[in-house]
Amino acid sequence: MDPVFSLTAPSGFDGLLGLELLEVGDELARARLPVREELKQPAGLVHGGVCASIAETLASVATALAVRGEGLEAMGLANQTSFLRPITVGTIHAEARRRHCGRTTWIWDVEITDDEGRTCVLTRMTIAVRPAAPVGA
Amino acid sequence: MDPVFSLTAPSGFDGLLGLELLEVGDELARARLPVREELKQPAGLVHGGVCASIAETLASVATALAVRGEGLEAMGLANQTSFLRPITVGTIHAEARRRHCGRTTWIWDVEITDDEGRTCVLTRMTIAVRPAAPVGA
Amino acid sequence: MDPVFSLTAPSGFDGLLGLELLEVGDELARARLPVREELKQPAGLVHGGVCASIAETLASVATALAVRGEGLEAMGLANQTSFLRPITVGTIHAEARRRHCGRTTWIWDVEITDDEGRTCVLTRMTIAVRPAAPVGA
Amino acid sequence: MDPVFSLTAPSGFDGLLGLELLEVGDELARARLPVREELKQPAGLVHGGVCASIAETLASVATALAVRGEGLEAMGLANQTSFLRPITVGTIHAEARRRHCGRTTWIWDVEITDDEGRTCVLTRMTIAVRPAAPVGA
Repeated sequence: MDPVFSLTAPSGFDGLLGLELLEVGDELARARLPVREELKQPAGLVHGGVCASIAETLASVATALAVRGEGLEAMGLANQTSFLRPITVGTIHAEARRRHCGRTTWIWDVEITDDEGRTCVLTRMTIAVRPAAPVGA
Repeated sequence: MDPVFSLTAPSGFDGLLGLELLEVGDELARARLPVREELKQPAGLVHGGVCASIAETLASVATALAVRGEGLEAMGLANQTSFLRPITVGTIHAEARRRHCGRTTWIWDVEITDDEGRTCVLTRMTIAVRPAAPVGA
Repeated sequence: MDPVFSLTAPSGFDGLLGLELLEVGDELARARLPVREELKQPAGLVHGGVCASIAETLASVATALAVRGEGLEAMGLANQTSFLRPITVGTIHAEARRRHCGRTTWIWDVEITDDEGRTCVLTRMTIAVRPAAPVGA
Repeated sequence: MDPVFSLTAPSGFDGLLGLELLEVGDELARARLPVREELKQPAGLVHGGVCASIAETLASVATALAVRGEGLEAMGLANQTSFLRPITVGTIHAEARRRHCGRTTWIWDVEITDDEGRTCVLTRMTIAVRPAAPVGA
């Protein structure tokens, strides 16, 4: 996690997605992303990878910020995403809740809903927590 | 799957990623994606969601093309991605192999390797196969 | 689901495990299983498969009972189990909560805790719901 | 892993299942289990948990035996099982192939087939590898 990491103006892939981080805490994180054509797959639905990516970001960033003070870093180990209902319009709403906070792994459940509050995607994220590589290493 | 769907010039999210589909068959599909800054997460690694998205595309597109002739459509049901080794440079190489071809679900195993041929990501994709919605419905 | 299926005296594999079903409803199901030597793996911990099996039973039985009145049957499609903390003594407590109730799939989250209420195992179960095969078919 | 651990006469849960380990190597492990009534669920199919348990045993035992010489121990971290086709008679055949051998995690793909060689269940097992707890600790 770079020291200039910004929650309000995500760079890299989160910036490419256009992800808006709304809240990032030790046990809860939230984000949203307005649907646009370039987030869709050929059939006109939001691409499943977009939702998997939002879940990945929420769990990884929240864990990374929570453990960095202890000299630890976070890395995604597994992303298990189930697709329940397609999203085609409006805004993608994502909320991550921590389910486990172990010495070497954290687990988050992420729920993605549409504008009508219907559950569309469920992701279980497993994050590895490890001693951070020294800067410049 | 839109009739003008193009394997050589992906639109939508695949276009945003810059994904190059190399081969899409009934039992095997391959793609590649050169690493660039806007595919990375804050620590400088390729974002896990990028790899999950590539797997999602390969399995979904290959299944959709295989069953469309029978009036069926394909939809991602589950994306289970395990991250083994980070990718930071070069090109992301992805290969999907079909493991199961049932009446209502297809299963694909996707392996993502780096330029040195090391396995970096493994995804198991479950695709639902359903009667296609009528055009204009 | 056999008409003589008994919640109070499970037969088959549930009987071999010694599983006690405490509550089986449309949205919540609970069971418990006292630890004994023949539920353990060689290192002396409860075998992970025991916990995966309990989750499988809870979600499958609860879905099957909920849909049988509509001429539908339930079949496990995917069992995703994460192991957080080993169990070695006491009783295994399991609680399944329904997360999704779709036309063709139901999803349940199962949490397994030990006697001190600590979360030890999390399972996400995907159950397929299909028209029941006719009796005698 | 107890020093008296026996591949030919499994104790604990493997013994309760009646599992026969046929081969346990660093990259491949095989087992079989004859179907009997007490391995079934109420609808008369082999219980999904039985298959998840076989996969768990194969991957865990093979990893444990491979790393014990280095003072390391193996523990199941995640069991992701997909059910493709029910098994009702004959023998359950299981084969585990190692897909990844990292410093802290190993990944195995387990395939379960019936007597006619049809793929019935696929499991991806993630095994954590950690320094072994000292004896008597």
